[in-house]
Order: sequence, then structure tokens, then C-alpha cells
Amino acid sequence: MIQYTRVERASGTASVTILAVSIEFHIEARSGAARAGRLITPHGDIETPVFMPVGTLASVKGVSQDILEELGVRILLGNTYHLYLRPGVEQVRKLGGLHRFMAWPRAILTDSGGFQVFSLNELRKVTEDGVTFRSHLDGSSHFLSPEAAMQAQIGLGADIIMAFDECTEYPADSARMRASMEMTLRWAERSKKYFEEHKHEVPWNGSRVAAAERTQALFGIVQGGMELQLRKESAERTVGVGFPGYAIGGLSVGEPRSLTREVVESTIEHLPADKPRYLMGVGTPEEIVAYAKLGIDMMDCVLPTRAARHGLLFTSEGKISIKQARYTGDDSPLDPNCGCKVCQRYSRPYLRHLYAANEVLAQVLNTIHNLSFYLDTMRTVRHSILLGKETGSSCVQSEPKP
Amino acid sequence: MIQYTRVERASGTASVTILAVSIEFHIEARSGAARAGRLITPHGDIETPVFMPVGTLASVKGVSQDILEELGVRILLGNTYHLYLRPGVEQVRKLGGLHRFMAWPRAILTDSGGFQVFSLNELRKVTEDGVTFRSHLDGSSHFLSPEAAMQAQIGLGADIIMAFDECTEYPADSARMRASMEMTLRWAERSKKYFEEHKHEVPWNGSRVAAAERTQALFGIVQGGMELQLRKESAERTVGVGFPGYAIGGLSVGEPRSLTREVVESTIEHLPADKPRYLMGVGTPEEIVAYAKLGIDMMDCVLPTRAARHGLLFTSEGKISIKQARYTGDDSPLDPNCGCKVCQRYSRPYLRHLYAANEVLAQVLNTIHNLSFYLDTMRTVRHSILLGKETGSSCVQSEPKP
Repeated sequence: MIQYTRVERASGTASVTILAVSIEFHIEARSGAARAGRLITPHGDIETPVFMPVGTLASVKGVSQDILEELGVRILLGNTYHLYLRPGVEQVRKLGGLHRFMAWPRAILTDSGGFQVFSLNELRKVTEDGVTFRSHLDGSSHFLSPEAAMQAQIGLGADIIMAFDECTEYPADSARMRASMEMTLRWAERSKKYFEEHKHEVPWNGSRVAAAERTQALFGIVQGGMELQLRKESAERTVGVGFPGYAIGGLSVGEPRSLTREVVESTIEHLPADKPRYLMGVGTPEEIVAYAKLGIDMMDCVLPTRAARHGLLFTSEGKISIKQARYTGDDSPLDPNCGCKVCQRYSRPYLRHLYAANEVLAQVLNTIHNLSFYLDTMRTVRHSILLGKETGSSCVQSEPKP
Repeated sequence: MIQYTRVERASGTASVTILAVSIEFHIEARSGAARAGRLITPHGDIETPVFMPVGTLASVKGVSQDILEELGVRILLGNTYHLYLRPGVEQVRKLGGLHRFMAWPRAILTDSGGFQVFSLNELRKVTEDGVTFRSHLDGSSHFLSPEAAMQAQIGLGADIIMAFDECTEYPADSARMRASMEMTLRWAERSKKYFEEHKHEVPWNGSRVAAAERTQALFGIVQGGMELQLRKESAERTVGVGFPGYAIGGLSVGEPRSLTREVVESTIEHLPADKPRYLMGVGTPEEIVAYAKLGIDMMDCVLPTRAARHGLLFTSEGKISIKQARYTGDDSPLDPNCGCKVCQRYSRPYLRHLYAANEVLAQVLNTIHNLSFYLDTMRTVRHSILLGKETGSSCVQSEPKP
């Protein structure tokens, strides 16, 4: 189960070879297709299913790291494309890697930069070799390939890094979906090769990972557009390349939600049961619950943090747009069922005022609440799995008969 | 020393009269002209000399109330002009006053709105009656008089409120300075009259101030431009009107710093020794130390919070402009001698990155540090006074002889 790798370490003048393990994944309980697991990384354990807040530029916008710790965040997501441009991989590497740079001792996952680069549209050119793109900041020209993306992610030093893939656009025809999927597979092999040859270059110093001598883990990404047969083939062949975890990419790109679910459900069948499964860029609170029930272990999404900045708040009573005048006189907490520090202290009229007055504290407090809501949602799902409850059906069964 | 006021309270069908006290001020130690005191307000005790962070719109920009508590903030300043426009006094009053609205159980001081209104320049018109002005937000027309400013400040319900004064522009000729000072005195009397007749309308509910049954306190403001004789007259006649505390206003309006100090020093002589003295809108870390040594007990300034938003940080080693490229590779804390949560956790390159990337967390962390620095500075001054040290002279005396 555990993947060991030989790592050469210089020790004085002699060189010693030790065995290094990347991540471990243990499934602690199952309920239907859902699993409650534990992901052991170089920077701590993560209980799954897990929602990973997005910290694009080495910061979850507006929220300090101690508050993220208080919220129970065990793993953050960083965006390689953005960090590559600012502050630059070399600067982060020199300062000891992303954990030390941003003073975050817990786990980090970085994406490969592929998704962001593909979002640039007119500013990019894709070849077999890689992607040439222009910075959205200053128009400067850059090149990302599987090798360059690995180099960047090793330099940043996240615990989990992602193979460089092509996110197939939607809609696309069958030929295009296949060609794109095939290239992603070739890029997966190139990513793995570079990673295996260079993973010892991770900038962690010995003391920070002394206990386990763990290395980074590289996850593969399943593509294949919206065609289930291609998804099956992509999954099987990506598993054939061999990774300690697998992501489902290329979704939430404009397709209907029912199609997203269909693709996820059919792809999961072709992924190994004992490896973590990561669904990228999903979703609403309802969706993260639904996907966890299908057997997804990891998810990330900008929705809770981005919506917070627009005054859209998720609560146990549904969505609230705090900018609405109706909350001016409604002197109740944002969510009476929420235990977060925002709901415990502040009222809807105050949050409404902060938002209307364009106060920075609005973004801070809204983001803390939304993240708390997402993390609580995931904890509840995990708890249900551990109790062996299948939330939907058991609720129906326990209803009194008419 | 303590000012008692008769307060009528409805109790069932009967009406009982109780004695209510506003604030108390006790001087605990003196060192030269400096005093270490304790100001007892309806919402807690404040150790003086004190620096009051500015929370213009019921928020210290970017910093949540629990962090302000952690920083040891005992009193915040709110701006009546801004709160009057947004969210409006009536809304705050209905929701129980500013303390409850912003979930801040400690003390608050509001200015009278005069200074902000006078800053509007072309948008205002001053008569004996009051000031007609246009909102900087939507151009709507408003009127503030001593009575209206009192009504607003009673509705907001701060612990300490300020008489409505005219901030004399700089430079101004003698006749103008005198006329303005005279009007401020007439407005002080009108402010006091309205306040005494209406202070029972404060929106605190009984339970929140049950212990002391304290009322709001109204402070008078000394004006008189830059002419020392007028300042003396203004001080003496304002003291003649009678307030539980006195502010020195109309400074930091463009005059040289040496003149500010001269005016403060000469005005203090004419203020009662047993009442708190509040110097409005001052200043740099060096200035707040200097004024505390002259016998000032309370100060407020936007400098630490505003400078933070521009990346200007106050440290024990001097000012730092965190945007400078030199901090990119300098992997040390912002201020190695500071115990604040920012300096304890984050490095200069990270703070520089957040600022350069325009991340909201830059403002949050910079503000926390600058406030911490100001509050620590004041605590150190207070400690010196309690130890009986006159920082300047005693240092000189204790130096070894050559």
C-alpha cells in the first residue's frame, strides 16, 4: 500500500540512502460508496472527505493562518500559475518552500497551473511540448510543460502536487476529446518521470519532516471530456502510469450539473478503491455532500471564499445575500445554527452594514463564516459515514408512516 | 470629584429616581507632568495614557473585534459624521446602540462630527445655528448643530461624546480665530444643555450598565487656533462651562509640528489637573510618547491604521515601507522586538508579497501590527510613569560618567 522511494541524502562527506514514503491513505469506515479516511502527509494528517480552501496567492483572501487553524483547516490549496508569477517559485524555494513562506505548518496541495493557463484563452498556445502563455499581470511570455510544472511544484514544496494536464474545453467533439486525453496521458508520464528524478529537491529542511522523512506525492488527473468511455479509458491508463492518488479534472467547465455528476459517478468506478480521489473545483455545499457520498475524498472550490466577497453567505437556512435591505433591522445572527466566531458575535445588520459600507471586515467575516460552513458540512458527512449512516435513505426510513 | 446626575427610570407604574454617575478618573501616579490614570466608563476601565484606535464606520478597517480585544484595546473611537450617514443613527439606536451594533462590549468615544464636516470644504456652510453640508457619498443635504450632534451621539450611545465645535482652519488671522473660538464656546453651552436634558435617552438597556448605572460623559473641546492667549481663554471658559473631561482640538491641521507642541503645552496648563485631557488626532509614535509626557491622557489618530493600508509599518527599529524590494529576501520578522501575532508568525518577504499582490491579508496583518506597536508604546509610557521614571532625564542621569 505504502510507496517507498530511495532518497539520497548527503551526510557530511558520505552519502546515505534512506527509504522515504510519500503519503499514506487509510480508509477508516465506509457507508455505501462513501468513505471516511485518513490521509497522512509530510505536514500532518487530514481526515477525509475533506474540503480544501483555496489560497491562490499563498493566502486565503482576508483570513489569517491562525484563524484557518482555528477553523480546523488541515490542508490548503495553492495555485501554481499565480505563485509562479508572484512572488515566483525561486523566491519561495529559497525561503524554504510554501509552508515556511506563508507560515502554514499544515498540509498544502498545489494544482499544476494547467487549469489557470488554459483559462487564459487568447493568451496561450498549446503544443505537444507544453503551453506558451502570456502573464495576465504584465503580458510577459512564459512556458509551462510537464517538466516545468513539476519543477515549479517541487520548488513550492506542497505536500501533494498535480500532474500537468490539459483541461479539455466544453463543448468539444469526440476527436478533440480523445486527442486531448491522449496528450494528458503522455504529459502524466512526463510529469511522473521528472518528479521521480527531482523530488529530492523539495526545499523542506530536515527538521520539518524529520519524523517521517516523507516526500511530496504526485497525483494523476483523469480527463476525457464529457464522454464516459473516454473517462473510463483515461482513468484506467492513468492508473496504469501509477500514482498515489487520482484527481478528476476537466469538470465544472460550463457543462450542466447533471452531466458533471454522471461523469464523476462513472469515473469513480475505474479508480482504485484504496487511493484518495480528488474532484477538482467542486462545488456548492449540496454538491460537496453529494460527491462525498459517491466516494470522493477531496474537493476544492473558490465558491465559499469568492461568494463571501460578494456578500453571498451559506447558512443552514439557505443562501443569504447580506447586501439586501431586509437584513438592516433583522437583529439575529447570520446563522443561528452555526458555531463560528462570526455567528457567535455579530448580527445580520452589522454584517449588512459592513458590506454596504465596503468595509474590509465584511470580506474577512464573510469568508470566515463560509469556510466554517463548508468545513462543518464536510465534518458532518464524515461523522455520518463513521456512524454508518447513509444520510438520504436512513432519513426516509426513520420518517413516521402516515 | 464624581459627577452625579438624577435619572428618572420607569419601574412598572411607579417612577424611581436614582443617582447616576458618568465617568470617573483617578490619577494613580505622576512623573513630571505625565500621569498614569484610570478612566472608569460605563463599558469598562481604561488605563491612561491611552491610544484609541479609530473605527470610523463601526469597524477598525480589516480587524475583527476579538483581535482588538486580544491587542488590549479598551476604548475605540467612532466617527459620528460617517455613522450618521451610514448606517444612520436611528438604525444603530434601534439595535441598542453602537456597542451592541458592532458587538464591542468595551468603551467607545465618538467625535461630534464637526471635524469631518469642516473637512468637506466646498460642501458645507457654517452659520451660528450650525453647519449645512452635503454628503460625500451621494450629495444629499444635511444639517448638524450642537443639538443635532448631541442627539446623534446620544443615539449612537458611546461612553464619551464630544461637544460640537468649529475646527478653525489654518492659517487664520486673529479676528477669525477669536470669532471661531467664541462660537465654539457658545456651541459648547448648547451642547451641554441638550446633553443634560436628553442623556437619559441613551439606548443601552438596563442590564448592560446595571452595575454602575453610569451615563454617557460629554467632553468639552478647547479651540483658539494657534494663538496661545486665545487657547488660554478658550480653556478657561470651557472649564467654566464645566465638563468631566477636556479635549484639545483644532491641531494637526497643517501647522508645523513645533507649533502643535507649543499650543498643546501651553493649553495643558489651563486645564484642571484632576480631569482627563484628550488630544485629538495625534500622532506618530514619537509624538504620542511626547504628549503623554506633557500630561495628555487620551489620544487618537488614523496614522497607524491608514499607514498600514499603505504598507508603512512602525517598528522598534524605525519605519518600514514593506513594499520595497529589499524585503523580498530578508527572512526575518517584521519587528524582532515585537510580540504581536504578526511578528511572531510571518516574515518580511511574506508581508511584502501580500502587499505587492494586493492581498487583503496585507491590510489585516499590517493594521494588527501597527496597532500593537502603538498600544505597546503607550503601555511602556504608562509603565515608566508608574515606576516614577521621567524617561528622558532619568536616562541621562543614569548614564555612566565619562
